[in-house]
Amino acid sequence: MQLHKRDVIDAAAALLDSYGIADLTMRRLARELKVSPGALYWHFPNKQALLGAVADRILQTVDDVPGDWRDRVEAVCARLRDALLSHTDGAELVSATFASGHSQAMARIVEVLADAATQAPVAPSKGELAARTVVYYVLGFTADEQSRLQWDASGAALPDEQAVLTTNPTERFAFGLRLLVDGMAAARAETVAAARNFE
Amino acid sequence: MQLHKRDVIDAAAALLDSYGIADLTMRRLARELKVSPGALYWHFPNKQALLGAVADRILQTVDDVPGDWRDRVEAVCARLRDALLSHTDGAELVSATFASGHSQAMARIVEVLADAATQAPVAPSKGELAARTVVYYVLGFTADEQSRLQWDASGAALPDEQAVLTTNPTERFAFGLRLLVDGMAAARAETVAAARNFE
Repeated sequence: MQLHKRDVIDAAAALLDSYGIADLTMRRLARELKVSPGALYWHFPNKQALLGAVADRILQTVDDVPGDWRDRVEAVCARLRDALLSHTDGAELVSATFASGHSQAMARIVEVLADAATQAPVAPSKGELAARTVVYYVLGFTADEQSRLQWDASGAALPDEQAVLTTNPTERFAFGLRLLVDGMAAARAETVAAARNFE
Repeated sequence: MQLHKRDVIDAAAALLDSYGIADLTMRRLARELKVSPGALYWHFPNKQALLGAVADRILQTVDDVPGDWRDRVEAVCARLRDALLSHTDGAELVSATFASGHSQAMARIVEVLADAATQAPVAPSKGELAARTVVYYVLGFTADEQSRLQWDASGAALPDEQAVLTTNPTERFAFGLRLLVDGMAAARAETVAAARNFE
């Protein structure tokens, strides 16, 4: 029976959800699919490429929305967080593929955020940096939130001084994002002030 | 010979620098120290506690500085990035201990940043959230930078579309931090505007 790329991604995503990222290896995946590891390498030259494809599957629901640049940034980031939280170790997997540059979905998300940032308007040459800053925040916040959820599920105790983290995570997430959005708007204020000086 | 806690941390930090976080296990560490794993558990109840102690060692140079709140945020974050980059997998290790709440040094860094944020002034009830937002950015940026450095060192190729990442990382780091600092200052602008409405 022929092994389709899509079947490999399905099986990898299922392994991730059931056992977590540490068990998502080429060897284990080949065993699940009852094929030789070589058959996997025909579709994916290396593990980074496979993880990138799994990340793209996880992120397929993260779309741009019509609207004001603030709405776009907030909606895309909320969808990104939801997608990461929907899969075991989702934030860790996507962070790794973002760093290795193997996720096309993350590249698209950076493009959307960069476009929104330049409407803020952040200078066009800085749009991608602003977008990546937002992405680092979303990935960092969500990885932290997800470790905590997974520990809670495993019954591990957390230190008392982390009481701030028991408050509504969606509100906490929105607060940090607002700092970044306000920072982008401040770049706008500078631009507008500079333009006025030329009037 | 008695096994001192300090010797365990020294050996763990040396293992990390030589082999990376994946090889920093209680079993491996016991072998290096020529003791039984039980001897380690006498000092550290679990691996998270050990990683926390290694994180505290890595972060011991990250101090507060006197000055304006912006200077403090920028200086502490620059020191934090330097400290993380000075150790193999430093960003990954510190991110993990930050999530588990086992690093006293990270707790202190959050306190300093929260204090600076409330001088911005962000509302006192939001200082810690603002501090954590900054920390997520610093950890996310630096983990990404460090994976890239470690891949470059291993000779692995990166996709072409990541050309933006070949520019000066210190400037890129400062840009994202400035967005956050401007966001905190915007909270200040709101507070000042609100105060004026009452005059």
